[in-house]
Amino acid sequence: MLKTFKPSVDWLLVFVPVAFLLEYVPAWHNPTALFICAGLAIIPLAGIMGRATEHLSEHLGQGIGGLLNATFGNAAELIIALMALHKGLIGVVKASITGSIIGNILLVLGAALTAGGLKYSEQRFNRTAMHTSTTSLMMAAIGLLVPTVFHYSGVGVTGDTWKPEVAQKLSLGIAGVLFLTYVFTLAFSLVTHKDLVSGKTHSASDAQSHSPSGEPPWSKAKGIVVLLVATLFVAWLSEFLVSSVESARAQLGVTEVFIGVIVVAIIGNAAEHSTAVWMAAKDKMDLSMGIAVGSSLQIALFVAPILVFTSWFLGHPMDLEFTIPELAAVIIAVLIVTEISRDGKTNWLEGVQLLSVYLILAILFYFLPGGH
Amino acid sequence: MLKTFKPSVDWLLVFVPVAFLLEYVPAWHNPTALFICAGLAIIPLAGIMGRATEHLSEHLGQGIGGLLNATFGNAAELIIALMALHKGLIGVVKASITGSIIGNILLVLGAALTAGGLKYSEQRFNRTAMHTSTTSLMMAAIGLLVPTVFHYSGVGVTGDTWKPEVAQKLSLGIAGVLFLTYVFTLAFSLVTHKDLVSGKTHSASDAQSHSPSGEPPWSKAKGIVVLLVATLFVAWLSEFLVSSVESARAQLGVTEVFIGVIVVAIIGNAAEHSTAVWMAAKDKMDLSMGIAVGSSLQIALFVAPILVFTSWFLGHPMDLEFTIPELAAVIIAVLIVTEISRDGKTNWLEGVQLLSVYLILAILFYFLPGGH
Amino acid sequence: MLKTFKPSVDWLLVFVPVAFLLEYVPAWHNPTALFICAGLAIIPLAGIMGRATEHLSEHLGQGIGGLLNATFGNAAELIIALMALHKGLIGVVKASITGSIIGNILLVLGAALTAGGLKYSEQRFNRTAMHTSTTSLMMAAIGLLVPTVFHYSGVGVTGDTWKPEVAQKLSLGIAGVLFLTYVFTLAFSLVTHKDLVSGKTHSASDAQSHSPSGEPPWSKAKGIVVLLVATLFVAWLSEFLVSSVESARAQLGVTEVFIGVIVVAIIGNAAEHSTAVWMAAKDKMDLSMGIAVGSSLQIALFVAPILVFTSWFLGHPMDLEFTIPELAAVIIAVLIVTEISRDGKTNWLEGVQLLSVYLILAILFYFLPGGH
Repeated sequence: MLKTFKPSVDWLLVFVPVAFLLEYVPAWHNPTALFICAGLAIIPLAGIMGRATEHLSEHLGQGIGGLLNATFGNAAELIIALMALHKGLIGVVKASITGSIIGNILLVLGAALTAGGLKYSEQRFNRTAMHTSTTSLMMAAIGLLVPTVFHYSGVGVTGDTWKPEVAQKLSLGIAGVLFLTYVFTLAFSLVTHKDLVSGKTHSASDAQSHSPSGEPPWSKAKGIVVLLVATLFVAWLSEFLVSSVESARAQLGVTEVFIGVIVVAIIGNAAEHSTAVWMAAKDKMDLSMGIAVGSSLQIALFVAPILVFTSWFLGHPMDLEFTIPELAAVIIAVLIVTEISRDGKTNWLEGVQLLSVYLILAILFYFLPGGH
Repeated sequence: MLKTFKPSVDWLLVFVPVAFLLEYVPAWHNPTALFICAGLAIIPLAGIMGRATEHLSEHLGQGIGGLLNATFGNAAELIIALMALHKGLIGVVKASITGSIIGNILLVLGAALTAGGLKYSEQRFNRTAMHTSTTSLMMAAIGLLVPTVFHYSGVGVTGDTWKPEVAQKLSLGIAGVLFLTYVFTLAFSLVTHKDLVSGKTHSASDAQSHSPSGEPPWSKAKGIVVLLVATLFVAWLSEFLVSSVESARAQLGVTEVFIGVIVVAIIGNAAEHSTAVWMAAKDKMDLSMGIAVGSSLQIALFVAPILVFTSWFLGHPMDLEFTIPELAAVIIAVLIVTEISRDGKTNWLEGVQLLSVYLILAILFYFLPGGH
Repeated sequence: MLKTFKPSVDWLLVFVPVAFLLEYVPAWHNPTALFICAGLAIIPLAGIMGRATEHLSEHLGQGIGGLLNATFGNAAELIIALMALHKGLIGVVKASITGSIIGNILLVLGAALTAGGLKYSEQRFNRTAMHTSTTSLMMAAIGLLVPTVFHYSGVGVTGDTWKPEVAQKLSLGIAGVLFLTYVFTLAFSLVTHKDLVSGKTHSASDAQSHSPSGEPPWSKAKGIVVLLVATLFVAWLSEFLVSSVESARAQLGVTEVFIGVIVVAIIGNAAEHSTAVWMAAKDKMDLSMGIAVGSSLQIALFVAPILVFTSWFLGHPMDLEFTIPELAAVIIAVLIVTEISRDGKTNWLEGVQLLSVYLILAILFYFLPGGH
């Protein structure tokens, strides 16, 4: 994914040393402050990872570069989720998957369409490329729906009781299908139909030319070093974030689900947010929508399956069964974005409608009694 | 909303004195007859309120006039609901909200498309205007879905029990968001994009020119007096309607929900029905669909929030939690109208399909065991 | 429906005598083998019935011929279901209705789009004709959803308990509406708008000209005799299939629902499958999609109601209440095909997406604990 930064976001890097001080200076220990600072510090680092990926992609040619982008685009979310999974915080991991999907579709895209719509009465985008994305999103929603359908149908209607081991196998199977779908979608957009979705691939060259900073291409070595260092710091700060989540949650008086769906999701997707809004304001709607919807897709079809597979090795097997509100949120988000994108045109009201749906869901998750 | 009447509907005014006699002459007291006569008498009065609003709008200019139309378009439904709320008949109020939404989308629009389709092989409408409306409808359905998701997720999955006070706060929050959406939708269609949806605003001048009676514009004074008198009578007759609903229900052997969803909804929307069918038969599809869908939208985004807010002052707090059949009916209606309207063309089969869905839902509500 | 066969399918006729031997030679008795052979033998016979219907249609003129096609297109499924109903295997019947609907939409259409998409980068079809079909499909899904909504709303929310007799009446009413919808859809596509959907009627002459065998038209007598003989054999073999289903199920270690949804549905729709894929490979997308979607429609709006009506006379009254996974599968299939067909273009990824959804649902039904 393309990550371009307005100066403001990079300033958040000051929170990197602050977070380290809060963690390692005993006198300053305060979980809530640590949680907030680690979260704020991850935002610019996620952006830097994205930028490094972009620059590296350029050295690797469009095919491999696109693949690299598609794989590392949501690396920050993946790292945070792996840390949480390692600590057995499965509820937070699932909630952050839900939150990333709906956050990108509703909050990021809603803000982008509103920002764009305030400047332009009507903005147009490539309907065909979006159609492929919304269909894939619908598939992802179906994949996440089925384990819950399984749970509720196993209970009650039949005499048999629902068994976690079977749910686990079912989730593994579905994760496999979703992952394959991701591979096929990549093959479609990077190989067989790359012209069709050219507006959506936001290749490195596009990223460059749209870059507000207009920075020159990085060398391959610089790209690799920056990517490694940024990844290391994101992992480190994710550790802090995850270790302080429980205390912060209790102190702030919100539920684990709210933290996962709203807070973690906003931290992980702040970079996409900033870029998508920026692009929409410049009337580059294909890029803007591609970033928002593509990021949701990547979470659902790539990050979620990877987490299911990895969870087996970490000894905390995670299934793909979501709570009813999480599922409802994903289905609602997918249906409304499908509806909004069907005519190839956007306006400010559509942006406001997406934001309103996000607000309604945020209210729901705020009031929801705790615990997965 | 534009209310134009074929002579037949105004004849129902004879039921106004009949209803008063049934209420105030002790010997004639009969709740079922009163219920039926009050219902029939409200139909033409709702139409007259609509006409007076139209005429007044013309004196107030397009902006304020459009706002007046948008606010008073469903005044009869609002008055009936407020009366029912005052008596604590919350089940009837919720059922009539559901009924008005699905009645306008399925029954009114279905009848209009069928009537139009019998004369014209294919009829066209402004797809862009309808797209805005169906997206808003989808948002409304989401708003009504969330409190029920909240209820069912609070029970069972978590140890916590669902609490009515929290459901109440959630509903207030959602009602606020829906109301804001209504304000934004009005701003969109009356201010920023009024040309785009010009086919949908059915301004007073359109109404005039399409009016079958071709009546000359009323004076401002006449408009105000007629509006006040008609509103007074509608309120009075709503009193009768609501006070007799329980006895009538028992005597007719149908449930409270059936009364609300089917009977009250038909009474409150008869005026829209008559006008939408008339316009479709004249191939004015933008007006016809605008009336049907706009009326549903107004119920969901304006009347329902107003009722939630008002219910607090009346001492019978109403939340936005609907029963599963009501919710299923609204979601089904919104999905099918979205599907039917997506190609900008209509034919008789689409009308029959909408009517069939209405019939299926009416059968469901008929057989449903009673009580909210 | 048009049934054209590549040589391979007709070879399966060798299983007809094998099935008879397995049933009537006591020493060879083996329920699982019988189940498999009877299933394989029905596939080419269903195709022959289809071909005979096509040839007969040609003698009867387009109107009556279209009606004959529409009525006998899924005769094999209907016969198998009637046999199962006669034995009281209501769970299998319902599962096979679900399976036929999703099998045609997801498996048959998915395979067709993939096959076509591997040869052509993009294929186009008549969006208007498909729009009518997907709307009808949505109606059918609504009809199947309502009895289940009824069941779950009757329990819990109200004090009343859900009563099977009422569910039965509700299902009869809905079956009536669905059947009427089918009649209206036929009137629309065969009478009032036959030009509009000409790409979808796949009339006998089309069938002829597309027939890979290029066989000359059959005489009326030959058509009738072949149809009668094939029907007789399909009925006979369905007897075997249904009588062995229980033993085969136990021996293969799968559930009744899996047999119904996946196995029986594949047997009954193999003919459609072969033809739809063949047509897609020749870029005749209107025919290909018309067969797949039309067959689903016929199951939902014609076969299912007929089975509900017939079940009353057979003494095993069947309602239209489906399990939650069955219902979810139908709704998912209808939504995804609606989404995929909305732009009038197809590509291989859309085919793979449909197949992936089918695979996810097959995994669900495989793991689902048994019993309706």
